[in-house]
Amino acid sequence: MLKQKGIDAQYELIGAGISGNKVYDLYLRMDSDVVMKNPDVVFIYIGVNDVWHKSTSGTGTDAVKFERFYTAIIKKLKEKNARVILCTPATIGEKKGYTNQQDGDMNYYSEIIRRIAGGNNCQVVDLRSIFHEYDERNNPENKDRGILTTDGVHLNSAGNKLVAEKMLDAIMTR
Amino acid sequence: MLKQKGIDAQYELIGAGISGNKVYDLYLRMDSDVVMKNPDVVFIYIGVNDVWHKSTSGTGTDAVKFERFYTAIIKKLKEKNARVILCTPATIGEKKGYTNQQDGDMNYYSEIIRRIAGGNNCQVVDLRSIFHEYDERNNPENKDRGILTTDGVHLNSAGNKLVAEKMLDAIMTR
Amino acid sequence: MLKQKGIDAQYELIGAGISGNKVYDLYLRMDSDVVMKNPDVVFIYIGVNDVWHKSTSGTGTDAVKFERFYTAIIKKLKEKNARVILCTPATIGEKKGYTNQQDGDMNYYSEIIRRIAGGNNCQVVDLRSIFHEYDERNNPENKDRGILTTDGVHLNSAGNKLVAEKMLDAIMTR
Amino acid sequence: MLKQKGIDAQYELIGAGISGNKVYDLYLRMDSDVVMKNPDVVFIYIGVNDVWHKSTSGTGTDAVKFERFYTAIIKKLKEKNARVILCTPATIGEKKGYTNQQDGDMNYYSEIIRRIAGGNNCQVVDLRSIFHEYDERNNPENKDRGILTTDGVHLNSAGNKLVAEKMLDAIMTR
Repeated sequence: MLKQKGIDAQYELIGAGISGNKVYDLYLRMDSDVVMKNPDVVFIYIGVNDVWHKSTSGTGTDAVKFERFYTAIIKKLKEKNARVILCTPATIGEKKGYTNQQDGDMNYYSEIIRRIAGGNNCQVVDLRSIFHEYDERNNPENKDRGILTTDGVHLNSAGNKLVAEKMLDAIMTR
Repeated sequence: MLKQKGIDAQYELIGAGISGNKVYDLYLRMDSDVVMKNPDVVFIYIGVNDVWHKSTSGTGTDAVKFERFYTAIIKKLKEKNARVILCTPATIGEKKGYTNQQDGDMNYYSEIIRRIAGGNNCQVVDLRSIFHEYDERNNPENKDRGILTTDGVHLNSAGNKLVAEKMLDAIMTR
Repeated sequence: MLKQKGIDAQYELIGAGISGNKVYDLYLRMDSDVVMKNPDVVFIYIGVNDVWHKSTSGTGTDAVKFERFYTAIIKKLKEKNARVILCTPATIGEKKGYTNQQDGDMNYYSEIIRRIAGGNNCQVVDLRSIFHEYDERNNPENKDRGILTTDGVHLNSAGNKLVAEKMLDAIMTR
Repeated sequence: MLKQKGIDAQYELIGAGISGNKVYDLYLRMDSDVVMKNPDVVFIYIGVNDVWHKSTSGTGTDAVKFERFYTAIIKKLKEKNARVILCTPATIGEKKGYTNQQDGDMNYYSEIIRRIAGGNNCQVVDLRSIFHEYDERNNPENKDRGILTTDGVHLNSAGNKLVAEKMLDAIMTR
C-alpha cells in the first residue's frame, strides 16, 4: 500500500509480533525487540490470546493485569517519545449477533484498551468494531470462519488487507 | 400473582430446581422429580451453570451435549403429554453492550434453546433477551450486578418478579 | 487372545465406547447401546475426558457428579443382573513421578471409582495403577508419550495389548 | 526465630509478596519493590497462583512462560549480586497420595524451579517436597486442609512456622 501511494521510501516497517504472545510477553521483550530500534510509531496489537487461552488452556490473562501490563508498555514507549497507536483485538469466531464464545470478554478487553487510549492520548485502530461490523454485513450464512479469518482467529488475506488499510489510515491521521 | 388474579385455585406449583444443576443433572433426576408428578405444564430453565462453570471450575457443558440432553429431556416430557415451555438462561453479569465475560456463550446457548423450541413446537420465555433489554434501559451506571440480580447471576426480587410475570404470561398464552 | 486360548466361541464381544464421551454421555445412551443387548459382563471404562476436558475446553465433570452418574450406571446394570467390571482411567501424559498436569485429578477420580467398586461389590481393572507402574519402569527418558500411548492419552498397540490382557484376567477371575 | 538465636540485629527482613501474584507480576514490580532496596538475599516464592488460577479463573501461567519469567527475574537479581534462594510452591490441597487436583502440575512447576536453580547455581527451599512429606506423615484422616493450611492453600501457623524454619536453615547454609 505504501508503494502504491509512492511513499514507501519514507517508511521502514519492522514486525515484532510473535505468535501466542499475551500482553505480559510483550512487556518482557519490548526493550530488545522494540525500544532498542527507536521506533517513531508503534502499533500495539494484543489481546486475542489473553482472552482465548482462558478457554483453551486455562492460561489467559486477568482483566486487571491485562490493563496493568498494557499501561506499563505504553509508559515505556512514551518515555522514548514514540507515537503509540492501540489496536483492539479483532475476533475469536466470526458468527453474528455476539454469539461467539468469547465475544463478551473480547468486547470487555477492547473497552479496556479504548479507555487506556483515552487516558494516554493514544490513537485507536478499533479492529474489534471494524471486524464486527464487517462480519455483520458480509456473513449471510452466519459461518464461524472464512470471512476475514481462516479459522475464526488467524486472518486470511481479506482480513490482513483490512487491518493494513486501517493501520495506514491511522498513520496518516494526526 | 395467581392469587391477585384470583386463579390460584386452578394451579398447583411444584418447584423442582436445584442450585448448581446443569442440563445433564436435570436428565438424571427428571423421572423422580418431574415425570412422576404428572405435570400439565413444565418450565425448563437451565443453562447458566452449563456456561458459567466453564470459567469457574472447568466443568461447563459442551454446546453439542447441551443440545443433546436438552432434547432428550423434552422427548421424555412430550411422551407424557406435558406442555413444555423453554426458558433461555437470563444472565451472568449485568453490564451493557455485551461486555460480560460469558455474554457470547450465553447468547449462543440461548440460540440453541430457541432452535430446539422451534423444532419441538414449544413456547419460549426468552429471559436472555428480556434481561438484556431491561439492563440496557435500566443500568445507567453500567454496573455488573444489582439491577435484576444480587451478584450478577442470582436473581434479586426485581429479577424474580420479572421472571414470574413472563412465566405467567407464557402459561396464559396458548 | 480369546482365539489363542481357544475360547473365542464362548464369547461375543460388543464395543460400545464412543470417542469424547464423559460419564453422563454413557448414562444417556446406555439403554439403547448396552442394556438392550443383555450383556453378561459389562466393562465401564470412563473418566479420562471427565478430567481432561477441564483443561482443554472447560467442560470436564465435577467429581461429585462423576460419582453420581457412575453410580446410576451401575445401578441400572445391576438391575439387569449384568456382571459389572470397573476400569480406572489410564493416563493423561506418561511422565514419571506424578508430574503430568492432570495426575492429581486422575488419581482422585480413580479413587472414586475404587470406592464405588467397593460399595457395589464390583471387580476393578485398575488401569491407573497399572499404567503408572509400567511407565515408572519403562520410560527411562521421562517422555510424555510413546510408551503406552501415541499422544499421552490415546493407546498405542502396547497400551491396547496391556489393557486387553488385564481385561481378560478380570473376566477369568471370579 | 532470629531473636531466639540472638542474631536479629544482623538482619533486616523486608516482605515483598502480594496476594494473588503470578510470576509475571513479580517481574513487573521487581525494580521498585526489590532491586531498589539492594537486598543481600532474596527468596523467590511463587507458583501457586500460576497453577491454581488455571482451574479457578482460566488465568494460570503456561509452564514455558513460567520458566521464562522466572529466569528473567533471577537474571536481574544476579546482576545486582543478590544471593537468590528459590522456593518451590508448597501445596494446593493437603490430601495424601497425590490426589489433589493440581498435584501433577504443582510437581511439574516445582521440577522447573529445581532445574532453574541447578542452572543458576541457586539454593532451593523445596517446600513442595517438605509439605508433601509432612502431610503424608501427619494427616491420618486424609483431610484436604487443616494440617499446614487453613483452606488447602493459605498457610496456618504450623505452615508458616515450617516455612520460616526452612528459610532460616537456607540462610544459614552456605
